[in-house]
Amino acid sequence: MAAQRLVVIGGDAAGMSAASQARRLKGPDELEIVAFERGHFSSYSACGIPYWVGGDVSGPDALVARSPAEHRERGIDLRMRTEVTELDVEGQRVKVRELDPAGGDRTGGGQSGGERWTGYDKLVIATGARPRRPALPGIDAPGVHGVQTLDDGQALLDTLEKAEGRRAVVVGAGYIGVEMAEALVNRGYEVTVLDRGEQPMSTLDPDMGKLVHSAMCGLGIETVRGVSVTGVLLDADGRARAVTTEEAEYPADVVVLGLGVRPETALARDAGLPLGESGGLLTDLAMRVRGHEDIWAGGDCVEVLDLVSGRTRHIALGTHANKHGQVIGSNVGDGYATFPGVVGTAVSKVCDLEIARTGLLERQATAVGLQFVTVTIESSSRAGYYPGARPMTVKMLAERRTGRLLGVQIVGREGAGKRVDIAAVALTAGMTVEQMTALDLGYAPPFSPVWDPVLVAARKATAAVARDLPGHGG
Amino acid sequence: MAAQRLVVIGGDAAGMSAASQARRLKGPDELEIVAFERGHFSSYSACGIPYWVGGDVSGPDALVARSPAEHRERGIDLRMRTEVTELDVEGQRVKVRELDPAGGDRTGGGQSGGERWTGYDKLVIATGARPRRPALPGIDAPGVHGVQTLDDGQALLDTLEKAEGRRAVVVGAGYIGVEMAEALVNRGYEVTVLDRGEQPMSTLDPDMGKLVHSAMCGLGIETVRGVSVTGVLLDADGRARAVTTEEAEYPADVVVLGLGVRPETALARDAGLPLGESGGLLTDLAMRVRGHEDIWAGGDCVEVLDLVSGRTRHIALGTHANKHGQVIGSNVGDGYATFPGVVGTAVSKVCDLEIARTGLLERQATAVGLQFVTVTIESSSRAGYYPGARPMTVKMLAERRTGRLLGVQIVGREGAGKRVDIAAVALTAGMTVEQMTALDLGYAPPFSPVWDPVLVAARKATAAVARDLPGHGG
Repeated sequence: MAAQRLVVIGGDAAGMSAASQARRLKGPDELEIVAFERGHFSSYSACGIPYWVGGDVSGPDALVARSPAEHRERGIDLRMRTEVTELDVEGQRVKVRELDPAGGDRTGGGQSGGERWTGYDKLVIATGARPRRPALPGIDAPGVHGVQTLDDGQALLDTLEKAEGRRAVVVGAGYIGVEMAEALVNRGYEVTVLDRGEQPMSTLDPDMGKLVHSAMCGLGIETVRGVSVTGVLLDADGRARAVTTEEAEYPADVVVLGLGVRPETALARDAGLPLGESGGLLTDLAMRVRGHEDIWAGGDCVEVLDLVSGRTRHIALGTHANKHGQVIGSNVGDGYATFPGVVGTAVSKVCDLEIARTGLLERQATAVGLQFVTVTIESSSRAGYYPGARPMTVKMLAERRTGRLLGVQIVGREGAGKRVDIAAVALTAGMTVEQMTALDLGYAPPFSPVWDPVLVAARKATAAVARDLPGHGG
Repeated sequence: MAAQRLVVIGGDAAGMSAASQARRLKGPDELEIVAFERGHFSSYSACGIPYWVGGDVSGPDALVARSPAEHRERGIDLRMRTEVTELDVEGQRVKVRELDPAGGDRTGGGQSGGERWTGYDKLVIATGARPRRPALPGIDAPGVHGVQTLDDGQALLDTLEKAEGRRAVVVGAGYIGVEMAEALVNRGYEVTVLDRGEQPMSTLDPDMGKLVHSAMCGLGIETVRGVSVTGVLLDADGRARAVTTEEAEYPADVVVLGLGVRPETALARDAGLPLGESGGLLTDLAMRVRGHEDIWAGGDCVEVLDLVSGRTRHIALGTHANKHGQVIGSNVGDGYATFPGVVGTAVSKVCDLEIARTGLLERQATAVGLQFVTVTIESSSRAGYYPGARPMTVKMLAERRTGRLLGVQIVGREGAGKRVDIAAVALTAGMTVEQMTALDLGYAPPFSPVWDPVLVAARKATAAVARDLPGHGG
């Protein structure tokens, strides 16, 4: 019997990265590792679901980085289709329920039995997130799909398979909504996106979101902006048949919710663990749940420190979840690692339009008391004379007086999206926009104009900061 | 008459950027600006020459960012085909000679006259660089071409036009040699590259250069490594007909020198201005020539501070030249700007193979007394399951004990090259590889695996630094 027992709740990126890293540091005689996953899949890429639905990627197996069997071979006792229903912090134990007591685990290994308690010495909470589903009539009907887990993706594909018509309504035009809209167009659907905002892509300022709207129109996606969904109408069988707003009714053979996600923290909340404003678990820099020496949390169920705003935020992204898992696993295994925080980087695409942001939007900066100047520039992905040069728009926010970089948004074609990484590193380093003008970025005609678009924006932002200084004559 | 007179020597990127920026800050009544250019072209992209020669880009006009006439419209008295032959620092004057005294300026504006002195209050030296041409028999013969200016490019194209055969020899496999080799293949030439090094692309460590060698073979370029050129054989008309090494003779209808460039600083040297080890002008951070209040220098004729090694180096790159020009122009115009230095970033491509480096190579790090660990990883440009994911190799150097990032080299396909910018910013900020593991880089399946290749390298480098620490048991 092992000296200690680690229990992991959640078999996706954060939980299984933590388990794997802990296993690397501690052998089975030192640490028993048991992980519980209520779904049918382990260690998968939820971010890949839109491409699976759209047919670019085969699935679901291609999206699974490591199967339950592979985890078990590596000495992790992963129990699939097993839900943790209660956490007893005082007693250092969790209550688990097998969802397929007849042994329905896709990959084998299912066990019979009802609810029971099982103890832990160390606990990792990686319960993920679930799609926001506003409390509206009909919202839980068959045919209304959130898209967060592979099981969700499979359920949506089953609906698409059976659907008689080819009309889809996507509620919400955040990045999941936009990616799902494109996926459904690729499946041959007529897609309408309903959104409350002034422009799609609320992860961008509206002036940049407008560029995304144009691209969506180009794909034939109808985007209805500035509307609130009031409910879902059902057919005689109780399935979704239309989405209603105050003004209109949108027929739908399938409804997809793209309203973002909430941390899945009911278990943690009921156990009295500390949650932040958006309902995510609060941790310290080592990803320990605050005030609890032997409980860690990571992935989509936690809030992370935003290094630019100084606030904690909920950001559900696989890349963060993997980092959290690494950090947790190192600490559980008596190593040492920290997760310092995020700067809010995100990248996505609609057709060949690449969309990226890092740092703060205007409204986010204002909300935390920052004052700033903004500039927007048009440039090109390559030297203007080089074949394949494509236009790109870069918006940059810099703090008044100090000139510190606060945020960058980029919309453009090939070569636009990953340029945001330049700004992400500069934000992490606390650079000013003037410091950025001197950055030694890769230049050759097939890769960049002689002034990289990010440098063009930094130069203009530097000038804007100077003009804004008190006493400036201009 | 203006209060002061600025003379600019050299009408390409650094000189004309400086002139333009100075003109933005000072009107013609405050500052007269005269610029002298001995060639036929102003403000052009020398980096575009291989693509012009290869036929990807039309030229030469497409490569000119701003013509002489456009500069003159903006209040800069640019004299084309006018060479500065002497600099009298004491007397604050330069001696100029018109090369086409009959008025042969392509764009008009030529004047008649011989050599004469003209005075300055402020001087900008932007005399550029010239191709290295080893003192070997036949090296100056017609048919042997350096490729540094648009005039050089035009001369090479004239030779290609007239050539009867289709055999080209490129001497040197640095990035210009490699780009020219590909250009000549695109022109239908059989290309042999002769190089002294163990692997092509001496801007990379040999293990990474080897990957470039494979790609060159794939293009049908014959690369002969580890050989020294001994001379050029001439035909009866005195034109190059073959290149010889100690072992063999390589027939050539055209010979291209890709041995890099030297700062063009004879004028400055003769005037007693301070030069560094590689013959480039030495400046302060404001790009003033050291010890000379009213003389600035920038572009390919200066040495710049390498922020990683702490040494000055000669790096001829249009992107630096443009930055120098901006800084000089600001300072000449009584503004304030500095050029803090470089980190040694370069990116290029052979066919669809993207090649990038930043910071120090192994031999460069060793030469300045640094000790380091290296790691090399294979990863992918996109999520492995996403269509178009291409492999990429990342090599990373980190300082022993401190873990400070020292350099990164990347070789891969689409999406590899500009990833070097992440490392370039991290180097500028002085980050450790462990700090880099937490970088919040753009992630979505079409753009990156969940761990960006640079992060994968940083993780492995972090582990290597830890293993190397004194007292580490493993």
